[in-house]
Amino acid sequence: MESAKTPKELKHKKADFSEWYHEVIQKAGIIDKRYDVKGMFVWLDYGVQTMRLIKDIWDKLFREHGIKEMYFPLIVPLKYAKMNDEWFEGFKEQCFWLRSQGSEKEEHLLRPTGEPAIYPMMRLWIRTHGDLPIRLYETVSSFRYETRHTIPLIRDREITFWYEIHTAHATEQEAKEELEAHVRINEKIWYELAIPAIKVEKPIWECFPGAGGAIEFYTLMPNKKLLENGSCNDLGQAYAKKFDIKFRDASGKERYVWQTCTGNGARYLAAVIATHGDDFGLVLPPAIAPVQVVIIPIVFKGREEELKHYAKALETQLNSSGIRAYADLGDATAGEKYYYWDLRGVPLRIEVGPKELKEKHVTIVRRVDRYKVKADAGAVEEHVKAQLIKVHELLLNTAKAFYEEHITDAKTLSELEQELKKGKACRVPWCGSKECADSMQVFEGVEVAGSIYKLQANEACVVCGKKAEKVALVGNTY
Amino acid sequence: MESAKTPKELKHKKADFSEWYHEVIQKAGIIDKRYDVKGMFVWLDYGVQTMRLIKDIWDKLFREHGIKEMYFPLIVPLKYAKMNDEWFEGFKEQCFWLRSQGSEKEEHLLRPTGEPAIYPMMRLWIRTHGDLPIRLYETVSSFRYETRHTIPLIRDREITFWYEIHTAHATEQEAKEELEAHVRINEKIWYELAIPAIKVEKPIWECFPGAGGAIEFYTLMPNKKLLENGSCNDLGQAYAKKFDIKFRDASGKERYVWQTCTGNGARYLAAVIATHGDDFGLVLPPAIAPVQVVIIPIVFKGREEELKHYAKALETQLNSSGIRAYADLGDATAGEKYYYWDLRGVPLRIEVGPKELKEKHVTIVRRVDRYKVKADAGAVEEHVKAQLIKVHELLLNTAKAFYEEHITDAKTLSELEQELKKGKACRVPWCGSKECADSMQVFEGVEVAGSIYKLQANEACVVCGKKAEKVALVGNTY
Repeated sequence: MESAKTPKELKHKKADFSEWYHEVIQKAGIIDKRYDVKGMFVWLDYGVQTMRLIKDIWDKLFREHGIKEMYFPLIVPLKYAKMNDEWFEGFKEQCFWLRSQGSEKEEHLLRPTGEPAIYPMMRLWIRTHGDLPIRLYETVSSFRYETRHTIPLIRDREITFWYEIHTAHATEQEAKEELEAHVRINEKIWYELAIPAIKVEKPIWECFPGAGGAIEFYTLMPNKKLLENGSCNDLGQAYAKKFDIKFRDASGKERYVWQTCTGNGARYLAAVIATHGDDFGLVLPPAIAPVQVVIIPIVFKGREEELKHYAKALETQLNSSGIRAYADLGDATAGEKYYYWDLRGVPLRIEVGPKELKEKHVTIVRRVDRYKVKADAGAVEEHVKAQLIKVHELLLNTAKAFYEEHITDAKTLSELEQELKKGKACRVPWCGSKECADSMQVFEGVEVAGSIYKLQANEACVVCGKKAEKVALVGNTY
Repeated sequence: MESAKTPKELKHKKADFSEWYHEVIQKAGIIDKRYDVKGMFVWLDYGVQTMRLIKDIWDKLFREHGIKEMYFPLIVPLKYAKMNDEWFEGFKEQCFWLRSQGSEKEEHLLRPTGEPAIYPMMRLWIRTHGDLPIRLYETVSSFRYETRHTIPLIRDREITFWYEIHTAHATEQEAKEELEAHVRINEKIWYELAIPAIKVEKPIWECFPGAGGAIEFYTLMPNKKLLENGSCNDLGQAYAKKFDIKFRDASGKERYVWQTCTGNGARYLAAVIATHGDDFGLVLPPAIAPVQVVIIPIVFKGREEELKHYAKALETQLNSSGIRAYADLGDATAGEKYYYWDLRGVPLRIEVGPKELKEKHVTIVRRVDRYKVKADAGAVEEHVKAQLIKVHELLLNTAKAFYEEHITDAKTLSELEQELKKGKACRVPWCGSKECADSMQVFEGVEVAGSIYKLQANEACVVCGKKAEKVALVGNTY
């Protein structure tokens, strides 16, 4: 951890979210975007620490669910990539092609997704029903030659800290249950991030041919755009048939496996930054804050050593009870330190000055709302733990309120258009047909993300007037 | 964790180390080499878990030393690569070149080493002496189109789990002290792995032009070949001058920084497998064993449930005291389970049968020497902890004895030749000149690794007879 240095002012988040976002990720030490390849950037140490804490959450949840961590090469042979001709047609324009020095031919590509690296191996591993289920994941970079505007952590050409779960099962039912488990795992991750991400069933015509559907998470960004943020895919037997992944069932009959895949990565962090940040910088949920409490001695002449000693002792005391605390004993002024750690979104600040020392208490300040509370020095861990829980609650509630304010119901097409023009996303009764979904895209940039997960409509479809089976989520998207 | 399945017999390690090695890494579930790109393989879950425990050791040691974790893109622009023309000339034959679909030009390559990705960024980060020192590392894949015979974990085209530390300093002295710290960190890692790796000062003519030298670690493999296993490089100002990395000192004068870099990765695991393994499979040092103790119920009819319950309770009890324990309650026979977990190198096995249940004790069996000890069920944690320490000691002592037996002193060139022919590596008094080093390469495959770190000779150089300043380490190398 560094000591404070004085940074410059930030852009206002509300006035220009995009500029604010680019500025805060750079100034708060998450990334350095000056690496000279379009769509690629350097993760700085504070960014790595924060992202690693998010990864720790998924590593733990996956392991508990019996999903095994593996690692597949980043380089995919063309013949693996071509096993799924439809996949290949879809991705070949976005591929980075590889040639080794001295060779003429390009017979390899960098993985744009995991399937062509993983499924030929699954084919080798699966022989009988006894080999099933297989549950594996890897956290890895993926590479896509993105032709759209790139945005760090959101749309990159090297997609870093990307996890993919791939599973194979003997029955369709088991695969569907697995997928539900992945949805629940993602809900747990989103809870830790204090974000009420919306679960959406992807329109079937946007899924891979032969797939059984997908459940996608969407986060609502400060510019009111919907960002797809993780997907859980019911692959059915679509890939199994392409990659020839079969097993012998109990009766000796050969059958194709049923597969799922689930993925997400640095977009979790993008959503955290965008959702909780403010004009002073990041505001990190306690679960993923590399420093949960920063201790800043308010130093007055003559008591420096005593106060620093006290701050350091407090750090040790908090660390030993499992709290990530850090005493900033650097030479900067207290004000500079406040500014520096506010920028980095540290959830709590503890101020210790001569008064605190004398009266044997500390002052705890919450980053999110500047609320101050005095705590008895003897019971500081309990106070800090309680405040960290409170911070999480505040962040989640504020985010929920934002989602509620900006996602509204539209009962007619003209209502939909009006609300979209106000910058809102809408829940819209929908029959489920592609034609009606197309009609809901009332102007450019508007998309039907899908239908809200497990929510049934009671009204008529806003387009055709037929019975609405679903509630569409419609909005501006990334 | 899986339950036991019956594996097939292994090759004899002594009879054919190379075949044994290839077989054990596949059968023990470390890797699957059937991925269809030469020099690349799939890390299986047991391999990932083991490698991650090694990585945890370095992550912790680096963090304690103030080395910050970052992540740089895998793709390097050609213009960065060409900033160091000598580096580029050395690596260009081994590069994987990238072209994106729709583009004609290859203007990017996959990183063969980190310098061309990292140093242009360091140049941006360093302005004044206040920005120094910089200490960073990343764990990442590197890519080299290796034309020699590839060997998984030893010589790969995708070099996985590879860390690189890069530091920059204001003075030469500080850089040299930093390098010593990296040597000490590596010594700590080798200690945890129970391997007495040999520190060697690399001949200066083999270092990068302008560099101040390098300290390399060598491990002695079962085939008596020396394997370079990690290097700590004093880069001097060689790279700083190529990448134009300068700072203003306290007097305002512009100066080049002094740099170090240190790297290693999966070769740590290769050395562990090779050094400690036997004809039954892996033998893992406790520090990096994903399962430190496997608990196997010796089930007799009628007491199955009771015994399984007991084994599971023991697992919980051991886990809660920080020991990685696993109760294998699968359907395989006890014999099959022994075989399976022996193959995976689990340091300790606890057997619990009706007798143990009745007499309230457990039997602990050490993987390394099959030594059995009875332990009171009430104090099983203490016994296990003591045995894990003992296992580490046994492994380290056995490895030391192997090194002592197979590395000998040679006082003349003919002695050197004799000993090398016997398959030994030799310590040889050496004046330090390139000419004499060349003369020590008495037949093909023999190399002078360098001079043994901080060891001074008292004899005359075996080649020229002049005063020997150094002791060369000479042997067959990989």
